[in-house]
Amino acid sequence: MPHIALPEDLPGIRGALAFRPETAKPLNELAEILLFGSHTLTPGERELIATYVSSLNDCHFCQSIHGAIAAAHLDGDEDLVRHVKADFPHANISDKLKALLLIAGKVQRGGKNVTTRDVEHARSLGASDLEIHDTVLIAAAFCMYNRYVDGLATMQPHDEAMYRERGKIVAREGYIQASKAYLPSLTGTR
Amino acid sequence: MPHIALPEDLPGIRGALAFRPETAKPLNELAEILLFGSHTLTPGERELIATYVSSLNDCHFCQSIHGAIAAAHLDGDEDLVRHVKADFPHANISDKLKALLLIAGKVQRGGKNVTTRDVEHARSLGASDLEIHDTVLIAAAFCMYNRYVDGLATMQPHDEAMYRERGKIVAREGYIQASKAYLPSLTGTR
Repeated sequence: MPHIALPEDLPGIRGALAFRPETAKPLNELAEILLFGSHTLTPGERELIATYVSSLNDCHFCQSIHGAIAAAHLDGDEDLVRHVKADFPHANISDKLKALLLIAGKVQRGGKNVTTRDVEHARSLGASDLEIHDTVLIAAAFCMYNRYVDGLATMQPHDEAMYRERGKIVAREGYIQASKAYLPSLTGTR
Repeated sequence: MPHIALPEDLPGIRGALAFRPETAKPLNELAEILLFGSHTLTPGERELIATYVSSLNDCHFCQSIHGAIAAAHLDGDEDLVRHVKADFPHANISDKLKALLLIAGKVQRGGKNVTTRDVEHARSLGASDLEIHDTVLIAAAFCMYNRYVDGLATMQPHDEAMYRERGKIVAREGYIQASKAYLPSLTGTR
């Protein structure tokens, strides 16, 4: 049972966003820019960072939906998503992404854990300042989204097919477009 | 030294926001709605929640600037801000705000720590669903802002007068207006 009266038909963050459309707008815009917008990191890479941080924060809804969005971007490779969550240093991803995931994991525990050496290592593998910035902000943002979803005790179904279907939609349309159905005011005149 | 090339004249989050104006826009809008917009909790109360969470996350810049903004909203009462950070259950604030700070502190450690009893207690002291929602989201958002500021190793001066002056400006103008000087594109045609 959610801690407050959220719409019953909208799981996870969607119920919370629908409850407060004013804050939903910047929350969706931030996700759109960080995860879906044009970028030198692919959407799949950025969704893997989001999924990994959400798994560290033990947020069932967020790691399930972002894992599904990541898989949709990665030709349906759900095994890769599972491998990144369980043991990213040995997953079949680039060394640059491994260096960025290391930074993301440190941000999850607290920003001060990130060292000059971590950043120099990522840079030596080709990471740009923008990629390092966005990795830190994606990790920080998911420390928010995860707490928002769990702190309100939102409904978090255990239904892999639901996450898989929704993941395909968000991977195709992005966050703002995919939320139109339950947040009509977001894309209206406001 | 910041981990990436941030503008040298902008301390704390301001340097990070100026580095990436695209993400600065939703980050500033979220702060504006949660902390400055019209609300049944006063701006001083909401800034106290932000300051308390930032102190739990040990973010020097954020607890200093939001503490200064809180004090500016509270007739300059810096002692009250210090008291809330150090020992809010005995501070001269309402019982409702104490119940909301308890929830905020639990969200800081992880969203699942918030219990039905915590929420019922806040509600019994007059907290509305919107106030509970916004308390959870303010606490979650500062787990993001704090990690963003520390994770990039932004410049964080130890200069109380600087925070006091800036705090008065933000308390008077709000986040979007106060950022115009270094984020001109934010309030332009985009």
